[in-house]
Amino acid sequence: MAEQTLGSESGHRLKPRCACGIDVHAHVVPEHFPAYLGSKAPSDWPSTVAAAPVNGLCHRSVMISGKNYRTVSEKCWSVTHRLADLAAMGLQHQAISPMPELLSYWMAPSDAAQLLRYLNEQIAGMVAESNGALIGLGAVPLQDMDLAIAELRYAVETLGFAGVEIGSNVNGVPIGAPQFDPFFAACEALNAAVFVHALKPTGMDRLVGPPPLQQVLAYPTDVGLASASVITSNLVLRRPKLRIAFSHGGGTLAMLLPRLQKGWSVFPALKEQVLSAPMEQARQLFFDTLVFDPTTLAQLVRQFGASQLLVGTDYPFNFHESAPLQQLDAAALDAHTVEQLTHGNARRFLARTFTKANT
Amino acid sequence: MAEQTLGSESGHRLKPRCACGIDVHAHVVPEHFPAYLGSKAPSDWPSTVAAAPVNGLCHRSVMISGKNYRTVSEKCWSVTHRLADLAAMGLQHQAISPMPELLSYWMAPSDAAQLLRYLNEQIAGMVAESNGALIGLGAVPLQDMDLAIAELRYAVETLGFAGVEIGSNVNGVPIGAPQFDPFFAACEALNAAVFVHALKPTGMDRLVGPPPLQQVLAYPTDVGLASASVITSNLVLRRPKLRIAFSHGGGTLAMLLPRLQKGWSVFPALKEQVLSAPMEQARQLFFDTLVFDPTTLAQLVRQFGASQLLVGTDYPFNFHESAPLQQLDAAALDAHTVEQLTHGNARRFLARTFTKANT
Repeated sequence: MAEQTLGSESGHRLKPRCACGIDVHAHVVPEHFPAYLGSKAPSDWPSTVAAAPVNGLCHRSVMISGKNYRTVSEKCWSVTHRLADLAAMGLQHQAISPMPELLSYWMAPSDAAQLLRYLNEQIAGMVAESNGALIGLGAVPLQDMDLAIAELRYAVETLGFAGVEIGSNVNGVPIGAPQFDPFFAACEALNAAVFVHALKPTGMDRLVGPPPLQQVLAYPTDVGLASASVITSNLVLRRPKLRIAFSHGGGTLAMLLPRLQKGWSVFPALKEQVLSAPMEQARQLFFDTLVFDPTTLAQLVRQFGASQLLVGTDYPFNFHESAPLQQLDAAALDAHTVEQLTHGNARRFLARTFTKANT
Repeated sequence: MAEQTLGSESGHRLKPRCACGIDVHAHVVPEHFPAYLGSKAPSDWPSTVAAAPVNGLCHRSVMISGKNYRTVSEKCWSVTHRLADLAAMGLQHQAISPMPELLSYWMAPSDAAQLLRYLNEQIAGMVAESNGALIGLGAVPLQDMDLAIAELRYAVETLGFAGVEIGSNVNGVPIGAPQFDPFFAACEALNAAVFVHALKPTGMDRLVGPPPLQQVLAYPTDVGLASASVITSNLVLRRPKLRIAFSHGGGTLAMLLPRLQKGWSVFPALKEQVLSAPMEQARQLFFDTLVFDPTTLAQLVRQFGASQLLVGTDYPFNFHESAPLQQLDAAALDAHTVEQLTHGNARRFLARTFTKANT
């Protein structure tokens, strides 16, 4: 593979490396949403309206339930912009998934199925336009198990996606809850990667400050508890071939895990229910590198293992990591670990894409 | 100071060090509770009943609202046992505070004031019996600001306590909320240390597993969000002389903090409200070392600073750290840092005790 030396946005120099990096955490918002096809659209059916351009980029506001949920730039739907930014980050591939607020678990299942089918088709269009650079992670209506599995099958078998994105909870039920097991069984059977993203988080009652604290503090809290719920319910023991990754470095899990490990050795009720050591189960999950701090990233490598971390950026939202490879360099990891984090682990995680073609 | 070499429970050898260590996180349950003095006791007024002995130790069950909240050993009230165990851990001092479930914020204020006065007197009795080894951290009825400040004053001025223990939230309101500022102003004025312990945590809706997960996962979640709430509300900027410590290593804060720091630089609404960098504010808070993992402890030193960490054990509950100094040794910290964590920082945190006498 070709080697390159890149300058970063922050002025640091990247160490020479192959230009083969893979970002597993990046989002899509379509430019337009379809009109509802039924007789009366649900009040939370999304739409977009034109917003003022910023820095020469078109912007649109995503309207949900009559409110502006977020104003986003054309980078959310433009493949041209995305590929240029991908190259600027020194990356070759990006797995793209819906903006989590679009996962629509709170809609009537048939409405959500219609909306998510549209989203999946939009993602498929971007993947097709990208000449192999973009990889699809679709959405499924997890509030209805049959519809969810049907859409999973469509996403991976018909659209050729590597897998799906799911929320850290479905209408308040953490994704480790036993009711989701048929879905994970289907993912395992279909060799589909599962990327878990924070969504409508718990802990909102503990925030003191402005609305962005939901994303900043409650998102990692929810994904931390979601990943812990997967451990305490033995998901990877039941589904040993399942590949499941958690956003935002697993959120708070790295701080919860040693306490969970110790608690497991102390409380008989935990030892009885959790069938292998929490620390061992954690090392079979994947986590992205989106933690904005080199010493924290290095600690994730120690906690979860060099084989379990994947570059994630949250591109193209404002609150994203624009220099993911520089973060790896700053974490003072050995060359083999950097190689694993940059692309080796992601190729394993996204095996449905990377084992069928030598991209 | 005398040096000693101790064997640990786990068979490791301690490095030689002064026998001057201070544990700031240890709890008290009185052997008996008083009968309620009013006409009709509230249903959640605690009592204890005899339980079966275990390993030759007397046990009693703490009954709250007709249920056994927890069965505890006589180590919770026996000074003799406590001093023997303190020596076995290689420690000289221990700050003792009520079992958090006794803080009683949910009772009528006058009932809570009566119960907490009893608890504070019990703690004072243990301190008096300990020949200087034990240090009091009292309880105050924070659901009523006037009563809380009055009891704070009684605890530090009359009983000679170093400060108080408070919950991470008061009936669901995180302790960073502005309504608690008069209390923190009084703590600052009285030179009283504040030890924040997890209590009735958020995130219970995200647990999949048996009841101990409340302590294991939701406690650190709640204390993490509580410490973040103190940062986002600028407590240490408003009260620069306040000394406030968070239990369980600050819970999940170490994972939240880099994201809060980055979010602060990205979201104008956060930059406007949070008046100095979250990372800088965090380094003015104290945290205990109760994280059950040497690499996590080393990461806390990197994140929060060697000057901000205090030994904490959660003695004498089942889920406690019985070898706190061995954890420091295993974290591969330099000698000066170990000295700070073992006693230097705690003497600063508990200044009300350690500046009036050369214990």
